[in-house]
Amino acid sequence: MSKKLLPLADATDLADDAACSTSLVAEPLTESEAAGLAAVFKALADPVRLRLFSLVASHAGGEACVCDLAASFDVTQPTISHHLKVLREAGLLDSERRGTWIYYRARPEALAQLSVLLAPQAAAA
Amino acid sequence: MSKKLLPLADATDLADDAACSTSLVAEPLTESEAAGLAAVFKALADPVRLRLFSLVASHAGGEACVCDLAASFDVTQPTISHHLKVLREAGLLDSERRGTWIYYRARPEALAQLSVLLAPQAAAA
Repeated sequence: MSKKLLPLADATDLADDAACSTSLVAEPLTESEAAGLAAVFKALADPVRLRLFSLVASHAGGEACVCDLAASFDVTQPTISHHLKVLREAGLLDSERRGTWIYYRARPEALAQLSVLLAPQAAAA
Repeated sequence: MSKKLLPLADATDLADDAACSTSLVAEPLTESEAAGLAAVFKALADPVRLRLFSLVASHAGGEACVCDLAASFDVTQPTISHHLKVLREAGLLDSERRGTWIYYRARPEALAQLSVLLAPQAAAA
């Protein structure tokens, strides 16, 4: 299996895997890696989703529910829920239902993997 | 001006700027930052473009022309040229015409900025 293990959503132990990911500067992506990674970037390629992702990731306690987020956007709560679902399906957010609300948090291992992948030099082995 | 200076294509001195970029985990993106950054991720959200970008970035000498790339893809040379243009307009590639060919290279400052932005922790000040 390639060191670049994508798509993010399919990997169950990305924390370890991220440590051995390599930059796309180091070696060309395979077709399958590119397909998985493009899906992740597609999830990030929308301004509202990107702000949502950033708001969740930077929220106090590292997590947020739709109730915390809706006030920051001009879109409806169902639209926000839809965008959060897209981010979760791309492997960028985890979610947990507690009572009435679903709480979302960024997956640091997914961010770490993307960060290494886009690093301008190859990460040390 | 925010530390997150986007879109990448508008910045002329990203090398310095990247050093003081912060992760989107550290503070929420503004609407304008999110719009600029979403455009960059959109450029990366296509499997062929992503492979092209990776091929250029990892190519011997750090640069490649369409003549170097066409053999790796099932799409036509004009299609490859179009994708390279999209990547250039997003600020991810630089280009230089030499003789018949345009040579492309990845912009390490753009990669550095994206890498810091997606880092799971805030970069040190």
